Formats: sequence, C-alpha cells, structure tokens
Amino acid sequence: MACSRYEYVKTYEQDDTILPNVWIVIRIDGKKFHKFSKTHNFEKPNDENALNVMNAAATAVMQEFRDVVLAYGQSDEYSFVFRKETAAFKRRSAKLLTYVTSLFSTSYVMQWSKWMCLPLAYAPCFDGRVVLYPSDENLRDYLSWRQADVHVNNLYNTAFWKLVLDSGLSNQKAEERLRGTFSADKNELLFQEFGINYNNLPAMYRKGTILLRKRVISDGDNDQKGRQAIVPLHEDLISSHFWKVHTEILGKYVPGTYTAPEIMPRLVDLQLNTKQEKGDYEKKQPENLAGIS
Amino acid sequence: MACSRYEYVKTYEQDDTILPNVWIVIRIDGKKFHKFSKTHNFEKPNDENALNVMNAAATAVMQEFRDVVLAYGQSDEYSFVFRKETAAFKRRSAKLLTYVTSLFSTSYVMQWSKWMCLPLAYAPCFDGRVVLYPSDENLRDYLSWRQADVHVNNLYNTAFWKLVLDSGLSNQKAEERLRGTFSADKNELLFQEFGINYNNLPAMYRKGTILLRKRVISDGDNDQKGRQAIVPLHEDLISSHFWKVHTEILGKYVPGTYTAPEIMPRLVDLQLNTKQEKGDYEKKQPENLAGIS
Amino acid sequence: MACSRYEYVKTYEQDDTILPNVWIVIRIDGKKFHKFSKTHNFEKPNDENALNVMNAAATAVMQEFRDVVLAYGQSDEYSFVFRKETAAFKRRSAKLLTYVTSLFSTSYVMQWSKWMCLPLAYAPCFDGRVVLYPSDENLRDYLSWRQADVHVNNLYNTAFWKLVLDSGLSNQKAEERLRGTFSADKNELLFQEFGINYNNLPAMYRKGTILLRKRVISDGDNDQKGRQAIVPLHEDLISSHFWKVHTEILGKYVPGTYTAPEIMPRLVDLQLNTKQEKGDYEKKQPENLAGIS
Amino acid sequence: MACSRYEYVKTYEQDDTILPNVWIVIRIDGKKFHKFSKTHNFEKPNDENALNVMNAAATAVMQEFRDVVLAYGQSDEYSFVFRKETAAFKRRSAKLLTYVTSLFSTSYVMQWSKWMCLPLAYAPCFDGRVVLYPSDENLRDYLSWRQADVHVNNLYNTAFWKLVLDSGLSNQKAEERLRGTFSADKNELLFQEFGINYNNLPAMYRKGTILLRKRVISDGDNDQKGRQAIVPLHEDLISSHFWKVHTEILGKYVPGTYTAPEIMPRLVDLQLNTKQEKGDYEKKQPENLAGIS
Repeated sequence: MACSRYEYVKTYEQDDTILPNVWIVIRIDGKKFHKFSKTHNFEKPNDENALNVMNAAATAVMQEFRDVVLAYGQSDEYSFVFRKETAAFKRRSAKLLTYVTSLFSTSYVMQWSKWMCLPLAYAPCFDGRVVLYPSDENLRDYLSWRQADVHVNNLYNTAFWKLVLDSGLSNQKAEERLRGTFSADKNELLFQEFGINYNNLPAMYRKGTILLRKRVISDGDNDQKGRQAIVPLHEDLISSHFWKVHTEILGKYVPGTYTAPEIMPRLVDLQLNTKQEKGDYEKKQPENLAGIS
Repeated sequence: MACSRYEYVKTYEQDDTILPNVWIVIRIDGKKFHKFSKTHNFEKPNDENALNVMNAAATAVMQEFRDVVLAYGQSDEYSFVFRKETAAFKRRSAKLLTYVTSLFSTSYVMQWSKWMCLPLAYAPCFDGRVVLYPSDENLRDYLSWRQADVHVNNLYNTAFWKLVLDSGLSNQKAEERLRGTFSADKNELLFQEFGINYNNLPAMYRKGTILLRKRVISDGDNDQKGRQAIVPLHEDLISSHFWKVHTEILGKYVPGTYTAPEIMPRLVDLQLNTKQEKGDYEKKQPENLAGIS
Repeated sequence: MACSRYEYVKTYEQDDTILPNVWIVIRIDGKKFHKFSKTHNFEKPNDENALNVMNAAATAVMQEFRDVVLAYGQSDEYSFVFRKETAAFKRRSAKLLTYVTSLFSTSYVMQWSKWMCLPLAYAPCFDGRVVLYPSDENLRDYLSWRQADVHVNNLYNTAFWKLVLDSGLSNQKAEERLRGTFSADKNELLFQEFGINYNNLPAMYRKGTILLRKRVISDGDNDQKGRQAIVPLHEDLISSHFWKVHTEILGKYVPGTYTAPEIMPRLVDLQLNTKQEKGDYEKKQPENLAGIS
Repeated sequence: MACSRYEYVKTYEQDDTILPNVWIVIRIDGKKFHKFSKTHNFEKPNDENALNVMNAAATAVMQEFRDVVLAYGQSDEYSFVFRKETAAFKRRSAKLLTYVTSLFSTSYVMQWSKWMCLPLAYAPCFDGRVVLYPSDENLRDYLSWRQADVHVNNLYNTAFWKLVLDSGLSNQKAEERLRGTFSADKNELLFQEFGINYNNLPAMYRKGTILLRKRVISDGDNDQKGRQAIVPLHEDLISSHFWKVHTEILGKYVPGTYTAPEIMPRLVDLQLNTKQEKGDYEKKQPENLAGIS
C-alpha cells in the first residue's frame, strides 16, 4: 500500500513509559497569567471567581481521570497526583501529561462564563510538567512546598494590595514598605493599619484548594450511603493531621473503595458549580467551606 | 523561610531538553473523537466546518509560536513542525508539547461557535506527542505518511458513506462490500454507482490542510509588500514539486525573512475565519482554495 | 581560540541524571560467556575459580565505589546496589554505569591469573544496565528474583551435568530426561541416582554470592574493633531473616557507620584472595564460607 | 514457578533505544589518568607506548563492532563513531555504551604488557558517554573539536615539559612562563630555546590517531585485492581534504564494501602490534606512519 514506504517514520517515536511504583505529579501553570489577569480585570489580591474557574477545570480532570487521587491548586497553577500504581495510558508520560493539560485547558474555557462576567479576550494557555516522587514523604513534601508557597505569596499580596488600594501607595512604595519584612511583620501591619486578622481571611486564599474523592451524603439520600464526588477542601496539608483524616490518599489503593474514612455530610458535589447554584448553596454553608462549593 | 525545608522537591524535575539540530514534530490527536463527532452531528464522511475549527485552532498555534514553519492537519489530528534550530523554551520537550497542546485545545473551544451550530456538549480533549526527525528526508516522509493516510482513509470513507447514506446499506454491509478492495476499485465504484469523480471532491478532504507562513497581498495593500499570514493549502506534499515551490520550509532559517518565494496574492489571511466572512469570501475564490480560506 | 568554533558540539550531550531517592541497581552480564566458558575449560556445572574471579572483580568495584551497599553475583552476572541517597558522580547514569562496568571488566582480567590456570585467550566483555527501584520491597524482590534464578538454573544444571558426565547421556538425552520435571523431581533424581543431597552442595553454587561491607575481627586485632572489609556471604536473601540480620542495608545511611550489627569474627577480608592465601585460609574455614574467602 | 512472584521487577527496566538516523559517538575517558600515568612512569609530554596501548585497545573494539566506521583517540580518551544506520544491539544505548567501554577496558589491560615495561599497579578504569549527532557537519565538527583539543594541549605540554625537563624550571615557574601565550608564542619558544620545529614532532602526538577500515595489500598478496584491516592515521581531519580522500566514512553504507577509495599498500594491519613486530616493522615504514603501525 501507499503508506508502507513512509511508515518507517513511526519507529522514530520514543518510548516514554514512566518508572513503576512512583507518585506521578502533573503540574499545570498558566502562561503569562500576569497579563491575562490584568486583561480580564481579576480582583486583587485574589479573584474568587477566577479561582473557581481553576477549581472547576481541575474537578473536570479528576472526574475524567479516575487515578488522580488528589489535586491541589493555588493562583494559576494546579497539581494532579496520580496514584503510584496507576496503569492509565500504560504510564506513557506524554499521554498522561497532554490529556491532563488539554482537558484542564478546554474545561477552563468552558467553565469561564459560568463564573466570570467579562468574556475571554483570547485563548488562555497552560504549560504542564511531569514530576516523579518515589516516597510518600516526597509527595507530602511536594504538596507542602506548594502550600507554603501560597502562604508566603498570599500574605505578601494581601499586605501589598491593602497598601496600594486602601492606603493609596504606589506599587513601588508598597514594595519598599514590605521589603525585608517577616511574616509576623506583615500580620502585624494588616492588623494595626487595616484591622485585618489574616487568619480570618477566606481559607481558599490562604491554603489553596485541595480536591479529594469522597462519598457525600445529600439531602434526599435516604440510604445514607452517599455517592462519590470530588470535594474541595481548604485545609492545612502540611501538618500530619490532614493525612490522618484522609488516610485513603496514601493508603493501598483498592479499586472501588475510595470512600472517605468518615462520611462527610456537609460537603457538596462540585457539580453544583454554576453561579446560580453556588448562590443558593452558599446560604446554607458554613464559612470554611464557602470556597468553591 | 518555611519553604526551604520542602524546596528540595524541585530537584526531582528531570531535564528533557531535546537534541539540537533535529526537526521537532508535535502531533495532536483528538481523544475519542469518534464519539465526539457523533455527539455533535458531524457530517459524514467530512464535516467542512469541523475541519475548519481544527484549522483555525492550528492557525492560532502558528501565530503564537513563530518557530512552527509548517502545520499539517487531517481528520482529528494536527502536526506542528518546529524548525531544526528552534531555541523556543530552550527546546524543553514538555514545555513545547504542552504549550502547543494547550493552546490548540483552548483555541478549538473558542473557535467552535464561529463554525458550528450545535454548542459543545462537553469539553473536548487532545493528546500530543513529540517526534524527532534528524533529516529533511525523514521530515518529508513523515508528512507524506500523514497525507497518504488521509488519502487511504478518505477514499474508503467516501465510498463507505455513499453506500450507507445513498444506497441504504447497513454499516456492516457497506464494510463487507469494501473489504479487500483496492484504490482503483473504490474509484470505480464511486464513478459507476454514484457518478462521482473522486479527484473532483474538495482538495481539503483528499489532501488535508497544510498551513504555511506567507506574505499575502490584500486589496487595500498599495505598496504590494503584503503582510505575513498563515495560509492554508490543500496540495500534494508527497511529490517534490511542493518542496520546490515552498523552498523556505527546508531552507536555512534567517530570522525575519520567512517570506514566500513568490508573492501569493490569491491567498487570504486566515484571520477571515468567521462563518460570515467565510461566506463572503468563498464567492470570490477559485475552487481549489475553497477549503478554509 | 581554535576550539571555540567547534565547541558547540558539547551542547549535544544530554543530561541523564537519575531521579533522587530510588535504589540504583547496575547489573553486569558476560557477553557470550557460553563460548567463553568453553574456550577456557570451565568446570561444569560450576567452576569455583571462575566464580571467584567474578567475586574478586566485584569486590574491587565495592572497594572503589563506597556507595555500593550490596553486590550480588551468580554465574556470569553481578548486580551492584547503590544506596538510594548516593550523590556519586551527581547520579549521572552513564558515569555510574560505565565506571562500574569498566572497573569490573579490568579487575576481571587482572584477577584472572590469580585463580585460573589457562591464560585468557581473548578479552572478555560485559554489558551493563541501570535499573531503578523506588521501594525497599522492590529492591528485595529484585534480589530475590536473581537468587530464585540461580536456584532454578543450578538445580537443573547440576542434574543435567550429572546425567551427561556420570551417566554418559548425550546432551540431548539429558535434556529430554529433565524436560517438564519439577524441583522435587530433580532433587529426587540427584539423590536416587547419584546419592547427592542437593542441599549439601556448596552454598555459593546454590545461593550465589552476596558481598556486604562489614567490620571484621582478625587474629592480631587486639582492640576488637575490627576493620571494614567486603565480605562474601552465600545465604538465603529471599527470607526476611537475612534482612533482620543485616539491617544496615536498608537502614538510613549514616556516613562512616556501616558496621555490622554484630561483629562477625569468622569472616575474612577478601583481600586474602590469591590462590595461595586462599589455600592457607581454607584449612581453617568452616565449609559454608569456603566460597571465595 | 518460584521466579514468577518476583519477575515483575523486570518491567522496571526502561527503554533506551537511540533515535534512528543519527551518528552515535561513544567517547571513553580514563578515570584519574593523571595519577595513573605518574604511577606507571609515562614519558612526558607523550608516552608513545602508552598511546599504543590505547590504540590497540581501540582497534580491538573496531574489530568486534563492525558498525564503528571511525575511531579517534588522543591522550587518555577515545571516540568511537557508529554509522547512522547501525542496528547493532537494536540501538539500545546502554548496550552499545557498555559493550564498547567494557571491551576497550579489558583490551587495554590485555595489551598493556605488549607495550609497557612496568606491570599494571592496579586496575585502570574508563568512563564512557553516548553523544548523538544528527548531521554529517555535526560529526565533523565533533571530531574537529577533539583534534583542536589535542593540538592546544600538546603544544602547551610540549613547551611545558621542555621548560621543566630541559631548562630545569619548577612546574609552577613553567606554568607562569606559558600563561597567556598564544600558539605562535609557544612555537617560537620551542624553536628559539630548544631548536624544535613543532611541526616535525611525531604526527601521532600532534594529530592524535584516527582508526579507519581499509583494504590493505601485504607482500604475499598476489591478487592485489588486499584484506580488510583497521589502519591508524595521524592526519589533519579538520580540513576538508581528509573527507575527500576517505569518502566512505560519510558515504551511504553498503555492507561489505567498506573498501578504501584507493588501495593503500603502505598501510599495515594493526594485528602487527606487539613490541617485537613493531620493531621489525618500523624499519621499513615512512616516518608519518611510525605511530602505532
């Protein structure tokens, strides 16, 4: 056949199978999101709805790829953790990487209008990378690294934008004011000058968003078994408490048993994620779950 | 700082710099597009508008990544060829792969409503892969392989759907009818039973779409210098004639001089790619450029 | 300088740094050792001296590369296990691989005449490969795999060569006789036909050779502290008992403290490895250490 | 069988097949040869016999691996060039790398006593690396880089050791004397102070050694067809003249036709490489082939 003369070029594709028995983390980052957030008038220092677009896109990825046991997002980045034993796409690195990146990207665009008022001015773009972590400790340290990063950045940004927006400092003056300060200094500045207790700010801004698979009880759920859902948490994952509560993350995977160690009736399915549903929903929710759900 | 204890995890990222001086091809494929095309009622065997969504998304990629010298698309796949010498993103494989895949994906969603009547039922998804070709001959053979593929598939699909849609055969009967036939047989069948000369069908269906950078003269362009644009061609790239006309593809790259060897006034900028503009435009175009332009 | 025009070619070298925090196993195999063993008249099924050349070469590798915590050899192969945390040669794969392979190869040639009567007819050759194991369990399973391999092969070979050398069967007849038999069958055959209790054969043949770093007490060692040495063991490493006795292998590495958990006065430094010293030494050794020491 | 439970560990071996259609260069370097050359009293700045051990080891590698079309050595390093199309060991990187490194290493040890008076004090060790070059120009530039390197180093070393050995300068004083000098300065110094015309020094020291496959006519070779041999050259390979004479190197490989473009009756088979044969042979050889042959 006509093809056969050229078909040898297929042999130039190189095997990129990932080593077995390691945690596979795929982290996605927005390309030039500084400019993107300006163009689309994101609120400073945090735009709740823009974060929710990210969270909704990440939820779509977790719904599609069942071997993602946890996702963690902050700012314009999201990390997806595939369980060590995953055989998805035969562990081919480029397949895993591009499927996650592509579905996150298309979901971001499709979710946009559910949360944002301005239409998309141009197509956003994300890069993705694969990083492998052999031990559970490595994985926890990776996630702690990202959550420590959101803490440092958000505390700085909160103080910075207060100085700019409320005190009328120029960007440069605000930067000079904060240069060389420690966390305690910035906490103090927020409290003394703006009456803000940093720890009372929304957890989503301070802790980022953790997506987990849980069984969730809804009102009409008479048998109390609940159904599986992707739930957003804004908890401290650096401390060991988080890992004691959510033991299924590091536990030996048994297909079909990704249930929460305790039924969590207060959590809702992220499917309820349009602006309207969200409005209805927020009325009944305790503050610490107000983030995306 | 709090970060430092965890920052070691950055060292787990592995270098994936691509060997210098080889052609870098990134090929994108739709995930489960058989189902996707059914859900969205694609015309069979070819949906011109659906192909144009692909072409428009690919054009967006070429506009963003200047070192892509050629793109070639057919069906639900697109290949992007980065010039051998590219230093884009320091030739890091995952960066190149995910930026192209992500931007193609988001552009596909954003272009969708310009060409298609049905709204997107769900987020589409594409995988991507990187393949390296050391020699010009390898690259030509790669592109020939893809174009031979479209020929074989399209001839089969054209005959198959004629048998199903016009002759009322079941899918199975149509398949049986075509089993074991050669190209000549299928050409004959189309001509004898349906009065179709296969070679007169739209070139985009038979040859796929080649995107090149060219200088294009538009009507109001008084100085006759034209401006750079991404132009779609539906030509035979297997024969050497194509490569003699478009010598800039394999030629030594000189920044800023990616002009066409001959000014091509009949080609239009793909920016004219909404349904309406397209309608206006088609009236003035010769048949063989009718595809996307 | 004259070099500069060409020096760009250095950039074509690709990074091959190994993922941190995984066990690095380098396994070396003799190239065409079937022919090599024939040419050099190796005794069948096991040539004690030829195995000792292997063991001595492996000991030289462990003496040079301090981060090898265990080596395991059988037949014409040897595996070297670098501790997870090693930073030797910045974990560059090719460096680790070729240094080990090269030093093993040259040591093999240099040790040859200490153990073998026939001179080397030609230069032997070994291939090497790098395999990574994330967990301790993986590493144990790897070593168990190699030791199970020596058991299966040695039991077969022992029976095979008894049938050929003692019973006068042709190779083909011996093979037919053993085809389809289980371990128990072969044990029975050895006992019934040749009066051999397989478990009494030298441990080195049945279990292969494990090299460990230990502190060893020698006669003139008055302070009872001993000195570090590479010691050969021919033990069962599949059972957990081995790993309980030699806890330092999987333990957290603390530089300078690779001492044995219990002082092992009976073990001798492999430095005593010429034929003559070996002769003297064997007289005082219990049978199960007769292998190399 | 007992093995099966552990056999999964085989799947941890990762594919390392080399991209097709690129030049594969394997370069070997002596580990700590500064110390090695001191221990074994190498003559300074060049030890002809020590270089011949290298050349003989490299010849052994070329005799074994038929797809090596050229080898180039200088000082304690040797580069082996596998033809682009080689399918040896299925182009698996570690196989090619370790076979070449291992055979070079063992051959070095086995050749040692044929050329050197002192016995080997300890086992030498070489590292190896694989570098890929897509184009013929890249390959030529790589070899030019190595030959430019030998020129720069040898000119410096020749001047340095003259100052130390003949003028009695300390190492430090000699280094100071040469600091900042250009090639012309060092040439002048050698001529003015020591009456040495650098260009008259043995070509092997100035140009390194190129090993090629050639058909060679020997005295009793009546049919004038010659036989294939590995021949050493000490020519300038930076200039294009070399590549015009030896067109078979970059030419399309046709198995069995690696004949020289012109029969070279003056070249001898490297098999004549013991000290004695060399002595006899040198008497009949023109100066510029005196190196190894």
